[in-house]
Amino acid sequence: MRGKVYLVGAGPGDPDLLTVKALRLLQTAEVVLYDDLVAPEILKLIPAAAKVQNVGKRCGKKTLQQEEINFLMIGFADAGRQVLRLKSGDPMILGRAGEEIEALRHAGVPYEVVPGVTSALGAASAAEIPLTHRRFSSAVVFITAHQAVGSEAANWKKLAGSGATLVIYMPGRDYSRVAANLKHAGLASDAPCAIVSRAATSNQQAYRTTIGELADAPALPAPSLLVVGEVVRLANADVFQNLDFQMPQDPESAFSLSSSAAQESVE
Amino acid sequence: MRGKVYLVGAGPGDPDLLTVKALRLLQTAEVVLYDDLVAPEILKLIPAAAKVQNVGKRCGKKTLQQEEINFLMIGFADAGRQVLRLKSGDPMILGRAGEEIEALRHAGVPYEVVPGVTSALGAASAAEIPLTHRRFSSAVVFITAHQAVGSEAANWKKLAGSGATLVIYMPGRDYSRVAANLKHAGLASDAPCAIVSRAATSNQQAYRTTIGELADAPALPAPSLLVVGEVVRLANADVFQNLDFQMPQDPESAFSLSSSAAQESVE
Repeated sequence: MRGKVYLVGAGPGDPDLLTVKALRLLQTAEVVLYDDLVAPEILKLIPAAAKVQNVGKRCGKKTLQQEEINFLMIGFADAGRQVLRLKSGDPMILGRAGEEIEALRHAGVPYEVVPGVTSALGAASAAEIPLTHRRFSSAVVFITAHQAVGSEAANWKKLAGSGATLVIYMPGRDYSRVAANLKHAGLASDAPCAIVSRAATSNQQAYRTTIGELADAPALPAPSLLVVGEVVRLANADVFQNLDFQMPQDPESAFSLSSSAAQESVE
Repeated sequence: MRGKVYLVGAGPGDPDLLTVKALRLLQTAEVVLYDDLVAPEILKLIPAAAKVQNVGKRCGKKTLQQEEINFLMIGFADAGRQVLRLKSGDPMILGRAGEEIEALRHAGVPYEVVPGVTSALGAASAAEIPLTHRRFSSAVVFITAHQAVGSEAANWKKLAGSGATLVIYMPGRDYSRVAANLKHAGLASDAPCAIVSRAATSNQQAYRTTIGELADAPALPAPSLLVVGEVVRLANADVFQNLDFQMPQDPESAFSLSSSAAQESVE
């Protein structure tokens, strides 16, 4: 009998933020193929009898090619196994699930996609940054920092300069390049931003700054996210390492915020 | 002793897509204040002894004002109760969590934000639409259909015309207006889109079409989402009601897709 492949989002890192379905699939998995960014706390939930393999990449150095991952998934399913293809966050956001689904369809292997809490949502809740807000932004963009050529660069500029909250996945450690791209897209130097590293884990670190000073921010460990936009003013100041950071006042702001975090900006 | 307020994402609808934490909080809740869009299957998990109140709005008709919701949360917490403020999807995406957090901070009430699987991710997994894809789009935008005036309209146009995958929350039932806005933003008439209604529930319905024919699509029940972008070509054709729909060929496509869903486009 043929097995089945589950493409599953592991969420941002805290095992408590797995979906009920993902937890059940983890606890009954026969084969687990996981990406590097899946948190160790989550891998501990896999039964000892399961075959577990890291198929991820770290810092651009691939452990396995995409074709090899496809080959493994299909091979184990053909051998009758229940295969858990475990991805950090949500499989449909920057997780190459689309390519794996195509391979599974082509091979005629039964599969199912199980969504997860994408890292941006984990970071937003942990740092208390509402990604949309009636007064600030009614849209949010999830994007990577890696687009740099031709029409991709033009589109990146449109998105960054749209006034929407931006969540930049995989900003890397060269924040000066991201900062330059954001300024090029029209963002002001005093636009607020926050780096959230290992969101929703016991190793979470966060740093709040502005686009103008982003280049001087400490390089926090991967996986990390950069959140950009006025909503960053609303964050809970207590979650940031640089607690003494003074958020610049919003020149267009006519209202007074009641939150303690926002008080900083009007002092 | 003072209680605590949990601002919790209930996910897209399927109780299996609750986070482990949200499920535990639901099963031990003393007071639940929930939005209309939270699925009935999820409300069934609340213990019978809990006080449960609908504080949502439907079709623009508010049950309670935001100030009244804040008043209730704070009042129950002051009376020592554990309060679950339950929102569909994720609290930080179009859920007004920002305003509720400000009110809770101002009142000095302990609170915590628990992320959830936002509806776009539930719909993407259910319809097998990868929201990002190396060949099609490296960014995704979550937006509503309601922005229409001044700089908001200009920003909406930038976002819609950016080439990123768009997920339009609350598209309403007047698809002709959304279609006109998308064309105005520069999208081609044959750009693929999909309406997904009640994603990840037993009542899920989905309809695949193009921007040019969107106005003629059936008005599917709320909550629904409109997904726009080339990635819609990759969806699993079997989830759509209009199974016989022929996706127009992508004029720029030089590669052949191996998925059965995409075969339609090259026939």
